[in-house]
Amino acid sequence: MKYGYFGSMKARPGQRDQVVKILLRASEGVRAAGCHLYVIGVADDDDQTIWVNEVWDSKEHHDASLQLPETRAAIGEAMPMLTGEFTSREFAVVGGLGLPTE
Amino acid sequence: MKYGYFGSMKARPGQRDQVVKILLRASEGVRAAGCHLYVIGVADDDDQTIWVNEVWDSKEHHDASLQLPETRAAIGEAMPMLTGEFTSREFAVVGGLGLPTE
Repeated sequence: MKYGYFGSMKARPGQRDQVVKILLRASEGVRAAGCHLYVIGVADDDDQTIWVNEVWDSKEHHDASLQLPETRAAIGEAMPMLTGEFTSREFAVVGGLGLPTE
Repeated sequence: MKYGYFGSMKARPGQRDQVVKILLRASEGVRAAGCHLYVIGVADDDDQTIWVNEVWDSKEHHDASLQLPETRAAIGEAMPMLTGEFTSREFAVVGGLGLPTE
């Protein structure tokens, strides 16, 4: 079953859009690492929080991606712009619409 | 910008998998209503909660879908199996991987 992740991160005031740019760039490279979905969201009523929803072939694929040089570079670039407040929820994807079939 | 929604619902004990089946069936019909993504998830450490992540053309498309006869039937079928505890987060999709291009 595919691995799903929904999380949020909080950017320091004025830094959200810069962090979004880093995430958008990072999302281009993860398909080869086993990522099927990497959706980045923001909200009008909160100018600091960024939401990310991911679907990976497995938790192992997700975890391994964190060690890729480009991922580590993106994390290193974004981290100083974040407050350190994160939320996360892992889940097993049972199906639905918009994902590749197995 | 596309409309994103991440929410959870809690099923009564023993009813989770039945609710998942209803959601899977409902997800088949929503593409024509402007839905691009409808991912259903469960977790090993929680046998009652179901997570749903959706991406729609707009909030209006999402809201209108709730009035479709098949959606109303699915809600009517699932509701008695739910505890009434929900969480939800709306967001504007800024991009990422795995979604159709505009």
